[in-house]
Amino acid sequence: MTTVLRLGIAGLGTVGTGTVKIIRQKAALLEARTGCKIEISAVSARTRDKDRGVNLSSYAWEDDPVALATRDDVDVFVELMGGSDGPAKAATEAALKAGKDVVTANKAMLALHGQALAELAEANGRVLRFEAAVAGGIPVIKSLTEGLAGNEITRVLGVMNGTCNYILTRMENAGLPYEEVFEEANQLGYLEADPNLDVGGIDAGHKLSLLSSIAFGTQVHFDGVELEGIGQISIEDIHAAADMGYRIKLLGVAQMTGRGLEQRMSPCLVPAASPLGQLEGGTNMVVIEGDAVEQIVLRGPGAGEGPTASAVMGDVLDIARGTRLSTFGQPAATLVETKPAQSAAPAPYYIRMTLEDKPGALAKIATALGASGISIDRMRQYGHADTAAPVLIVTHKTRRTALNEAVIAMRETGVMLGDPVSLRIEEV
Amino acid sequence: MTTVLRLGIAGLGTVGTGTVKIIRQKAALLEARTGCKIEISAVSARTRDKDRGVNLSSYAWEDDPVALATRDDVDVFVELMGGSDGPAKAATEAALKAGKDVVTANKAMLALHGQALAELAEANGRVLRFEAAVAGGIPVIKSLTEGLAGNEITRVLGVMNGTCNYILTRMENAGLPYEEVFEEANQLGYLEADPNLDVGGIDAGHKLSLLSSIAFGTQVHFDGVELEGIGQISIEDIHAAADMGYRIKLLGVAQMTGRGLEQRMSPCLVPAASPLGQLEGGTNMVVIEGDAVEQIVLRGPGAGEGPTASAVMGDVLDIARGTRLSTFGQPAATLVETKPAQSAAPAPYYIRMTLEDKPGALAKIATALGASGISIDRMRQYGHADTAAPVLIVTHKTRRTALNEAVIAMRETGVMLGDPVSLRIEEV
Repeated sequence: MTTVLRLGIAGLGTVGTGTVKIIRQKAALLEARTGCKIEISAVSARTRDKDRGVNLSSYAWEDDPVALATRDDVDVFVELMGGSDGPAKAATEAALKAGKDVVTANKAMLALHGQALAELAEANGRVLRFEAAVAGGIPVIKSLTEGLAGNEITRVLGVMNGTCNYILTRMENAGLPYEEVFEEANQLGYLEADPNLDVGGIDAGHKLSLLSSIAFGTQVHFDGVELEGIGQISIEDIHAAADMGYRIKLLGVAQMTGRGLEQRMSPCLVPAASPLGQLEGGTNMVVIEGDAVEQIVLRGPGAGEGPTASAVMGDVLDIARGTRLSTFGQPAATLVETKPAQSAAPAPYYIRMTLEDKPGALAKIATALGASGISIDRMRQYGHADTAAPVLIVTHKTRRTALNEAVIAMRETGVMLGDPVSLRIEEV
Repeated sequence: MTTVLRLGIAGLGTVGTGTVKIIRQKAALLEARTGCKIEISAVSARTRDKDRGVNLSSYAWEDDPVALATRDDVDVFVELMGGSDGPAKAATEAALKAGKDVVTANKAMLALHGQALAELAEANGRVLRFEAAVAGGIPVIKSLTEGLAGNEITRVLGVMNGTCNYILTRMENAGLPYEEVFEEANQLGYLEADPNLDVGGIDAGHKLSLLSSIAFGTQVHFDGVELEGIGQISIEDIHAAADMGYRIKLLGVAQMTGRGLEQRMSPCLVPAASPLGQLEGGTNMVVIEGDAVEQIVLRGPGAGEGPTASAVMGDVLDIARGTRLSTFGQPAATLVETKPAQSAAPAPYYIRMTLEDKPGALAKIATALGASGISIDRMRQYGHADTAAPVLIVTHKTRRTALNEAVIAMRETGVMLGDPVSLRIEEV
C-alpha cells in the first residue's frame, strides 16, 4: 500500500466536480479509512475557463486526456468524460498501458469495449473498476462481484434508467400523455443530448450488459440485449395495468437459461406491491437473485453529482486500500463467449385491445389465443358508451413467438379495432 | 495470493452446514472467481454423530474448536458456533494469535468484544470479518465499509431482526394479539432459545452497534444502545398506526449528533408507504444515509441457511482474492471512544389514549401537551358506544423528555382512562 494515491481526473462535469469536492472536503476521513492520502495531481476537461464551484488551482491542467492519463505523478486515472470511443477510450488505454489503475463511470465504453479493456488492464497488471457506471450511487457492482460471489446467480433485474422511471411514474401520477411528460423531462434537463439513449433503453441496456457479464461469467455482449424503449407506452396502458394490479417499468432482465443468456431491456409489467412496482421517480433498483442468498434488493439514486461521485470514490478507495479485483469479477481470459438465447423464457402477458361490441367477438379472440396454445388467466371487459369495447387479458405463461402468432389470428377475426398492445409480465 | 485457501469450520448448525454445501457444490465457480481453490481442512461441532445432510468424511474432525483454530493446515478459521464468550471467543483469539484470518457470523461476540478482537487481529496482521453477523444475506457490511466509504454517514437505520418483523406483520395481517403470534413463532422455531434476544431487541441491538462503529468510526459500544422490545405492542396500536398512515417496526437507528452517538433499537412508527413500512415477514432492511449518496436501501433475507452462508462466503472469497480490510473499516487504534448521546434527537410522536367522554376532556389533554411545549400535528377521536373515547394524537417534533413530562400532566387531568401509549415516529 502506498501512503499517497495520486489521481488524474478527466472530465469535470457533474460527476467529476462531485468527485473533486469529496476529495477536497473529506481528506482526513478518507485517510483514516484507507491509511492513504488521496491527492489529485492533475485534471482535464474540454473547457478550462468555467466556474465549476470548486477550486482547481492547485492541480496541474492538461488539455489532452491522454497526456493526463500517462503523467508520472498519476497513479489512478479517473475517466469521467463519457462517450464509448474517442478520447475516453484512447485515454483509458493509454493509462492502462502506462501502468495506471483506472476508475471510470463510462457504461457505453465498457458495454462496447469491456472485454478488450479488461484484457488490457490484466495484461498490464492494473485494475479497471466501474461502480459508477451502473445504477449511480448503489454499490451494485461491488455487491455482485464480491458480497454475493458465493452464489450461482440465477437472475439480475431492475430499473436502471431514472429518467424513464421518472417519465412513467409522472405519466401515472399526473395522468399525462407520454409526449407531454417527455417534453417536461427535456425542459428539466433530465434527458441525454440524444434522448433515445434514455427512452430507447440504450443507456439502461449498456448497464444491463455489464451486470450480465459479472453475474454469469460471460463476455460483455451489448448487442445481445433485446432493446425496446418506452415511447409506445400510453397512459391507457398505465391505467389498465394498474387496474390489474401492475405497474409498467422499463425493466432490465438478465438470466442464464438452457438456451443461452437472455438479456432484455423493455417495458414490462411488475406487481404493484413488489419493491420494483413501488419505485417512484428517478430512483434506481437492482434485484439480484442467487441460489444461496435468494433475493437481494438494492435501491438508491441512479444519477446526480453526490451519488455518482460516491460510487467513483468507492472504487478509488478500494485501490487505496490495496484491493485488486478483476474488472468483471474473474480474469478476462476466463469469461466465456456469450451465447444469446434466441427467444425469451415464457412469461404471462398483458394484452389490451378494443373489440367491436357484437355477439361472439370475445369468443373469437379467445379461440384465436387458444389455437396458439395460450390460455387466459384473467379477462376484463369494461363498460363503454359506444360500440367499441375495451378488453384486457392477462394470459398464463406463454412464449412471445406464440403470442405473435395469436395476434395475427386475432387480427384475422375482424372483430378487433386497431392493433392490440401486448406487454410481458415479469414475475418478481 | 495462495492458490489454495484452507478453512477450518467450527459450528455445523444451519449456517455451518450451508457453508460446507456451497464449498462442496461450487468448487469450480469459486475458483474461477478467486483464482484460488477453497478447501476445508477440518471441522468441529458439539456432536459428531448427527446427519447434517452433507458428507463431512473427507475433513478432519476436532472436538475442541481451539485445536481446530490453530491447526497448521488451516488458513482461515470460520467461527459459526455463536455465543459472546466461551468457546467462540477462545477459538477466535487462538486463531488470530496463531496467524489465521477469521470469518465469523457472531454478532454477540463482536458487539461485546469487537474492539479487543479487532486490535488482536491487527496486532497479528490478520483480518477478522463478519458480514454474516448483520442482516443475513444482505452485503451491508461491505456496502458500508467499502462501497460507501467516500461518504460521511449521517444515519443508519433498519429492521434487523426478522422474527420481530414477522411477529409485527403477522399480528397486523391476521389481526391476532402479540401473545398468540409469539406462541406461533415459537412453535415454528423462529425464536432464539432465550426469546428475549429477539423480542427484547438484544440481537438486533448487537447488529446495530456493529453498523454504528463502521459508520461513525467509533469503538463498538453495545451498552450505549437504548433497547426496547416489542412485547408492549398491541394489536390496537398496530391498527391505530395504520389508520394514521404508519406501520410499527422494531427499528434500529444510529446517528451521530452534536450531543454524541445516538443508538436506539425500539418500536417506532414509519410511513406505511416507505420501503421500511412496506417490509413484510422475516425480511431485513438496512437504510444507509450519507452526505454524498443520499439514501441507499438494502433489502434481503435476514436469516436462513443459504443467505447466511452466502454472507460467510463473501468474506471467505474476499480473503481468497487477497482483499485485506480492517474489521470496522479503519484501524482499530483509530476508532474513537463512543460518547453516547444522553437523549434522543427530537421527533414526532404518536400517542394513543382513552379519554372519559365528557365536555372539556380533550381540551385538558391539549393544554397539558402545550404546557410542555408540544404542539399537535394531527388528532383523531373515534366514535364509541360507551363513555370511553379512543383518541390518537400525532405531535410535531418534540423530545422524549418533554413528552414524559406531558404524560405526567395528562395523567393529572383525571380525564384519561388508563395509561397512554406513546411511540416515536422515525422520519425516513
